Amino acid sequence: MRYRFDIAYDGTAYFGWQVQPNGITVQEKIESAIHEVTGATVKLHGSGRTDQGVHARRQVAHADLPGRIDERGVKKALNAVLPGDIRILALARASASFHARHSATGKEYRYFIWNADIVPPFLRNYRTHIRDRLDDAAMREAAAALEGRHDFAAFTANPNRPVESTVRDLRKLTVSKHGSEITVSAVADGFLYKMVRSLVGFLVRVGEGAEPPSEATVIIESRVRTARVPTAPPQGLFLWNVHY
Amino acid sequence: MRYRFDIAYDGTAYFGWQVQPNGITVQEKIESAIHEVTGATVKLHGSGRTDQGVHARRQVAHADLPGRIDERGVKKALNAVLPGDIRILALARASASFHARHSATGKEYRYFIWNADIVPPFLRNYRTHIRDRLDDAAMREAAAALEGRHDFAAFTANPNRPVESTVRDLRKLTVSKHGSEITVSAVADGFLYKMVRSLVGFLVRVGEGAEPPSEATVIIESRVRTARVPTAPPQGLFLWNVHY
Repeated sequence: MRYRFDIAYDGTAYFGWQVQPNGITVQEKIESAIHEVTGATVKLHGSGRTDQGVHARRQVAHADLPGRIDERGVKKALNAVLPGDIRILALARASASFHARHSATGKEYRYFIWNADIVPPFLRNYRTHIRDRLDDAAMREAAAALEGRHDFAAFTANPNRPVESTVRDLRKLTVSKHGSEITVSAVADGFLYKMVRSLVGFLVRVGEGAEPPSEATVIIESRVRTARVPTAPPQGLFLWNVHY
Repeated sequence: MRYRFDIAYDGTAYFGWQVQPNGITVQEKIESAIHEVTGATVKLHGSGRTDQGVHARRQVAHADLPGRIDERGVKKALNAVLPGDIRILALARASASFHARHSATGKEYRYFIWNADIVPPFLRNYRTHIRDRLDDAAMREAAAALEGRHDFAAFTANPNRPVESTVRDLRKLTVSKHGSEITVSAVADGFLYKMVRSLVGFLVRVGEGAEPPSEATVIIESRVRTARVPTAPPQGLFLWNVHY
């Protein structure tokens, strides 16, 4: 029986989503909890990885359990067993053809910058701190130029990895400012490795005045990753939603 | 020279505000930082204590430093030395008669309850979790009955402590609900030991239907602390502001 898990997590204490040898990951915490609650040893398939320190407002995963479960009871038991920085938001039966990664039609990420002298202590793990005032209007102009279907090879951390294609449809890339908070929202059919953090890294350089907004198009067309596109830090990044 | 410090802190990792032998407190972290930055050994006088796990959006304190300091530079250096869960929001010279506790004319606290099945992981240290739906209209009615100048002996943790008086002017006690969040705001000329958590403990019992709102007046008039007034947990409580 296939089940869909909707999951939120604070990535601060974890080595990212996916199981790996160097430290505890969110995936293995949940797999252990499933084992503890149901007795089943399962592999949890996420919609994609998130890096160390990156958060998820809503990650989606699937797993095959040996039989029917009481979804409500198992969800409650998982949340009782899991630490408070990982929560199962929903647990529901899915069709046998549902696949958290392959069935996804799009994803949304949000990146939060705290653009003021001091970050409130309650937000310190959830915002990237930039003291100097960023020009959000310039960032908005650059973001608009990055929207659309492009080859984003210049905006991924490792363009030489053997992926099928570095073309993605960036349906939305917006920059909004409320008080000291600057929010970058990105929606695409899919994202390359570290693509959101690379887009934000470039937008911050534009906001700092290091690049004019018009360079966005030049850099996309170059299809070459350079130091003009730094990778923004992880703690401001949230996987916001996965669309099916 | 007397200086005023405006301070925010996440109380999760500390044994409260005031220096004590059992664990690290916010006061001693800041006193150490002042020593590290200025070389001076000072005592920091807060507007009042906060208990273990209680947060401050704005706590105010004063200290006497041996000479003139560069406020801007020292504030910046203190924030560089302090951990991210304690921030100096402002540092300014104060008159010799300013006293963080005695000069305060009032204080505001806010208490946040997350009233839903699941607490988002990002809020787990800043909200008190109550799963069963609370009747916020009943809580509002009880809160209104508690406002005003009363003897709050029934709403302090230790009414037998030798304090001058247990009479306080509770200028405002409101309950508001936005989505899953219930916020209790309390403003008074001063608060007794654990008074806010006691007021909230009673209001939650009203919200659960364990007490009718009309009992608020009966309990105040009794001036006796009983199990009908439990102490709500610390992590939902924020010292919000100190008025001068």
